[in-house]
Amino acid sequence: MTSSHPAAPAGQRTVRRHNAALVLRAIADTPGLSRAEVATRTGLTKATVSSLVERLMNGGLVAEAGPAPRNGPGRRGAALSLSPAGPHGLGVEIGVDYLATCLVDLTGTPRGQWVSEADNRTEPAAAVLDRAAGAVRACLAEAARLGVRAGGVGVALPGLVEAGTGTLRVAPNLGWHDIDIPAALRARVDLGTLPVLPGNEANFAALAELWAGGPHDYVHVSGEIGIGAGIVIDGTLFEGVRGFGGELGHFAVDPGGPECPCGARGCLERLAGQEAVLRRAGVPLEGRPSQLLDELIRRLEAGQPAALEATADAGHWLGVALADVVNLLDVPTVVLGGAYARLHPWLAGPLAERLRARVMSASFAPVRVLRSALGGEAAARGAAGAAVRAILADPESFVDAG
Amino acid sequence: MTSSHPAAPAGQRTVRRHNAALVLRAIADTPGLSRAEVATRTGLTKATVSSLVERLMNGGLVAEAGPAPRNGPGRRGAALSLSPAGPHGLGVEIGVDYLATCLVDLTGTPRGQWVSEADNRTEPAAAVLDRAAGAVRACLAEAARLGVRAGGVGVALPGLVEAGTGTLRVAPNLGWHDIDIPAALRARVDLGTLPVLPGNEANFAALAELWAGGPHDYVHVSGEIGIGAGIVIDGTLFEGVRGFGGELGHFAVDPGGPECPCGARGCLERLAGQEAVLRRAGVPLEGRPSQLLDELIRRLEAGQPAALEATADAGHWLGVALADVVNLLDVPTVVLGGAYARLHPWLAGPLAERLRARVMSASFAPVRVLRSALGGEAAARGAAGAAVRAILADPESFVDAG
Repeated sequence: MTSSHPAAPAGQRTVRRHNAALVLRAIADTPGLSRAEVATRTGLTKATVSSLVERLMNGGLVAEAGPAPRNGPGRRGAALSLSPAGPHGLGVEIGVDYLATCLVDLTGTPRGQWVSEADNRTEPAAAVLDRAAGAVRACLAEAARLGVRAGGVGVALPGLVEAGTGTLRVAPNLGWHDIDIPAALRARVDLGTLPVLPGNEANFAALAELWAGGPHDYVHVSGEIGIGAGIVIDGTLFEGVRGFGGELGHFAVDPGGPECPCGARGCLERLAGQEAVLRRAGVPLEGRPSQLLDELIRRLEAGQPAALEATADAGHWLGVALADVVNLLDVPTVVLGGAYARLHPWLAGPLAERLRARVMSASFAPVRVLRSALGGEAAARGAAGAAVRAILADPESFVDAG
Repeated sequence: MTSSHPAAPAGQRTVRRHNAALVLRAIADTPGLSRAEVATRTGLTKATVSSLVERLMNGGLVAEAGPAPRNGPGRRGAALSLSPAGPHGLGVEIGVDYLATCLVDLTGTPRGQWVSEADNRTEPAAAVLDRAAGAVRACLAEAARLGVRAGGVGVALPGLVEAGTGTLRVAPNLGWHDIDIPAALRARVDLGTLPVLPGNEANFAALAELWAGGPHDYVHVSGEIGIGAGIVIDGTLFEGVRGFGGELGHFAVDPGGPECPCGARGCLERLAGQEAVLRRAGVPLEGRPSQLLDELIRRLEAGQPAALEATADAGHWLGVALADVVNLLDVPTVVLGGAYARLHPWLAGPLAERLRARVMSASFAPVRVLRSALGGEAAARGAAGAAVRAILADPESFVDAG
């Protein structure tokens, strides 16, 4: 992705790279700034800012529109903002029972979202990856139709992704092991020099929540067939020391409980995962996943005892696991995402009751249980957002490569 | 503690405060530096460094000895180091069944450690605080005997301590609630302007481990009657968002398990805490705590089945809880501290077995189970060290107050 720039010596290139990111960050944080205001905020000279802004405009990252709204003497400079026609981030999520894609512009605003339901456990990994590649291709075609180009591809996965390599080490619910995701995707669709950024779906979902204006300290719980957690502390995602954190679904909540595909017993997923709830509620596991969830919610709204009991029970077990998380990390907020966002009205009560009973600090430092504004679309959106954030963090690499 | 310095304007005082900390940090990190070398490392002028070093020497924080070992031209400057006669940190730990104190010099080296065993659950809080104050007084007398003065008092507590106020909100094993620790201590012993720094014992123990050269990313488990965890990520203690984190002892490992004084069921402490192990091993709970632990270890060394089974069982439950921690945080190392340091040979096996079985990343990112080098003395030592670190972080406040 980084190409050399033979005209400038190494030191100068490093400085320009740093300064370009600084300028773009200022424009992203406060759309409408003039060049002079960017200079004031960044501490760079006006000449440097002008030169960098020109480079960023030529690279399609920054647009100017009319004069900046400014008081005081002097000519009003043009208002700068991230270009809506700039590179877009493409996100694809390989869920256990669906594929989702999302296209966002440089500001992170979604330009399109698609979901295709299919049980990815019943096909070999290669076939699922073929379909994922097809979804990426469709998303690239959509970007072309909109007249924009893609700037990177984020890939959300229901498993443990190695931070340095992007290798999916294990996805228990899919039964997948050691798949080099960037290589697998590039082998199926021509991505040229576009960066591919694989990551855990729960982490991407937590990031999407943060970027959509979520709180600063929280645990975001992605409830699907698997259950994952994204930990955000002081506005920063903590993925674990080596990138393998957030495996809430395999918390041991009932040592004598049912067996889990991971090999252990009594994992939270087996007691509070989507399929466990549907099964206990008596919803036949036939049809598309969203239909099953719709059916469960219909039964909950109708006050059907089996559905109410199954969901309350899931809330109880979720509360047991999250009480451990809060006892360990002292996070003040839990955000329910994925399918749990839709089940929030029935889950939150029993969950909060367990937190009150088990969290040591609950009486003087209560824990809020919020509902994700994004729900099931969060992971693909977070993956797309990550691709865009990578450009904002290092615009020179993008401009060079373009 | 911070006193004003009317001679210098506010801006200058802030700068000097910052620079004094910078200079002292450089000397602490690399003992033996000359003034010129400190200037090079900090980027400050030699004149500024000389002036600050003189101030720090007058305040008793820095000592010089002979010429610094240096090559190259020019006069050799005197070698600077933290003064061994400088202010000492005093740590006191109020354990569930003991009181411990520790005196450390500016480098964190212990100059004295004392433990006094007594069941602090059988007396009212006021009486225990009287004895703790007595221990602090004895420690201050020892400092006077050594010809050094105290620079601050760290207080390690077996409960949840509010970060801003130093109030002990709850200590379940003592049955204590809402005690303003600094006020309680100052009411009993004349501490003048000495800062009092209360904190959770497991966190202080984890810090002592870090300062003694422990790894950079780990969970330190303090196993006493209660069980606490100190989380160190990238060389920094994470105490939780509001300071109430690390409550490993109340992880729910067996939902049908025994009741806990905290009000919940099946907490780890009830299954793997020191008293639970002693009881299951058949050791009569009479005598001093260290005698009970000695007796357990004697039985373990003799291969007595009840003792072996009880300890292995504790290791198993500890492994269940720590698997959750590793699944959540992906920490590569667990350090067994407190009484667990002595029980390591019998606990580590069953514990590691559970980690291998339950941690999702165990097969490709194994978890080490280490034994604390400090054991039961860690918390008091960490508390004393914290008092010293506070001086190193802001030497001007200390010099001003002195």
